[in-house]
Amino acid sequence: MNEPVREVRGELQLVRRLAALLGGRAGSVKFGDDMCLIEPDQPLLWTVDMLMDGVDFDSRQHSWQSIGRKAMAVNLSDCAAMAALPVAGLCAVALNDRLGMEDAWELLRAAHEFGLAYGCPLVGGDTNSWSSPTVISISVAARCEPGREPVRRDGARPGDRIWLTGPVGGSILGRHMDFEPRLRIAQQIALHLHPHAMIDISDGLALDLWRLLDASGCGAVLEQEALDAAIHEDARRLSVQDGGSPREHALYDGEDFELIAIVPSDAPEETCRELGLLPLGRTVDQNGLLLEQADGRLVPITIRGWEHFR
Amino acid sequence: MNEPVREVRGELQLVRRLAALLGGRAGSVKFGDDMCLIEPDQPLLWTVDMLMDGVDFDSRQHSWQSIGRKAMAVNLSDCAAMAALPVAGLCAVALNDRLGMEDAWELLRAAHEFGLAYGCPLVGGDTNSWSSPTVISISVAARCEPGREPVRRDGARPGDRIWLTGPVGGSILGRHMDFEPRLRIAQQIALHLHPHAMIDISDGLALDLWRLLDASGCGAVLEQEALDAAIHEDARRLSVQDGGSPREHALYDGEDFELIAIVPSDAPEETCRELGLLPLGRTVDQNGLLLEQADGRLVPITIRGWEHFR
Repeated sequence: MNEPVREVRGELQLVRRLAALLGGRAGSVKFGDDMCLIEPDQPLLWTVDMLMDGVDFDSRQHSWQSIGRKAMAVNLSDCAAMAALPVAGLCAVALNDRLGMEDAWELLRAAHEFGLAYGCPLVGGDTNSWSSPTVISISVAARCEPGREPVRRDGARPGDRIWLTGPVGGSILGRHMDFEPRLRIAQQIALHLHPHAMIDISDGLALDLWRLLDASGCGAVLEQEALDAAIHEDARRLSVQDGGSPREHALYDGEDFELIAIVPSDAPEETCRELGLLPLGRTVDQNGLLLEQADGRLVPITIRGWEHFR
Repeated sequence: MNEPVREVRGELQLVRRLAALLGGRAGSVKFGDDMCLIEPDQPLLWTVDMLMDGVDFDSRQHSWQSIGRKAMAVNLSDCAAMAALPVAGLCAVALNDRLGMEDAWELLRAAHEFGLAYGCPLVGGDTNSWSSPTVISISVAARCEPGREPVRRDGARPGDRIWLTGPVGGSILGRHMDFEPRLRIAQQIALHLHPHAMIDISDGLALDLWRLLDASGCGAVLEQEALDAAIHEDARRLSVQDGGSPREHALYDGEDFELIAIVPSDAPEETCRELGLLPLGRTVDQNGLLLEQADGRLVPITIRGWEHFR
């Protein structure tokens, strides 16, 4: 008599371990079926991010656990940018075929457990292997608090105030792998400040702010003193290493995953400060991004940052 | 004055073309925001598949249009396997950096347009480039007809009848790229035959049937004459080329994307035949997969097939 279990190795074993880890989380549909089930009682938001070895992480340097964590965290950051609450994730991987089972397991378990801490378990996926570098793509579904709309990036209006959830620049020194997605403060901002627009900084403050302004049809003036106060100490450390100015690192480094919140001018500044937000400047009628120097002069800020597929 | 538009190339241009193609499809949230919106009025099913150049397609041989079509079609096949109706898709790509803009565009447009023909537009995604082979991962959300449950893979019971939506084997000769997902017949099966279980054949008839049986806790007997009548002519052609038997190709070749439907024994056989289904055998109490020869002898069928990450 044939013994099927002996015939199937590798992928099946991994999927079974995953099923035990994730088990019973997809409603009436069991883990491992052709699709998984999510049961929303309201509109869902939906995002996907793909990370590639040698581009978004370096498997020679980073642990598979930290890579799995990041693959989930970048999606949770998208949820934060819309003030949404993540519900569930799907994970597709193309694993380099030299990866051991334990490495693959660490990668997937870390993604699941990090998501779970924010209410976002993995509920399914697709596991593959190949001879090229590892790719991991996670897709996340999220919802808004009942009665609240997602915070889009196209709602900024001239005269709004621009705030940051934390200092930026130099994330490559480590924060790009272990940042905490700004889900909790995003809820506070949505609840207390009724922001007109938000975006998370994945490709650099200048480029992501420009994307928001471009979507909203307005421009912005950043105040030099405020901008300099929002420079992360990592940007200063990196500046010593590579000779770039700390301000340039703050404007152009990617993967800070702080939020840019565009808040109506009559929102209480006191609340912004209590939430630990950092002021950055104001939106204006004229398109483009300007720096207001201490002497009042306005100089253009070049828009560049991390961009795939140039 | 800076001119931001000149500073951003490549990815932005691709995303803008996509936005024009997909525009306005994500409810109140515009294409290009951090997440997209889906508005379900019932539970959603959710799946993901990742295709890699050199594994699931060969960009030296296949057009980017056919690759994009396949990337969507494999997900639609998952929907068919649950008798679900696809609603929307998200697409993440890591494009080899030698790909031209037009190639990338063909890939994504083909995925979108093929999905759209089945009511499943792309509504968002993540575009990346790198120096390794191209990876494309599409995630699809689907729903069931109101009042109907998804057809799972774990509901088969001993004594059920096993049917196939079409002949299998030899898909590598071309059908693995241009198959039509069995969405329409899946609806007919669900409506008229009330199947206990279904699965689509992605990794081979023997392996996928075994997965269904394993999930359901039963076994199956395939009737040799019926099995032989379900051999695709491509399996016979391939058999001439490579010396493998046609029956082996039918049992073990992957990517047929036909459905295996497990139907209660009292379902009208007439209806099955009218739908063009091919009989294969019956489920039994004892685990494992057996072939019933013309003389009545039962011989075990080895379980093997395409499996990643051995």
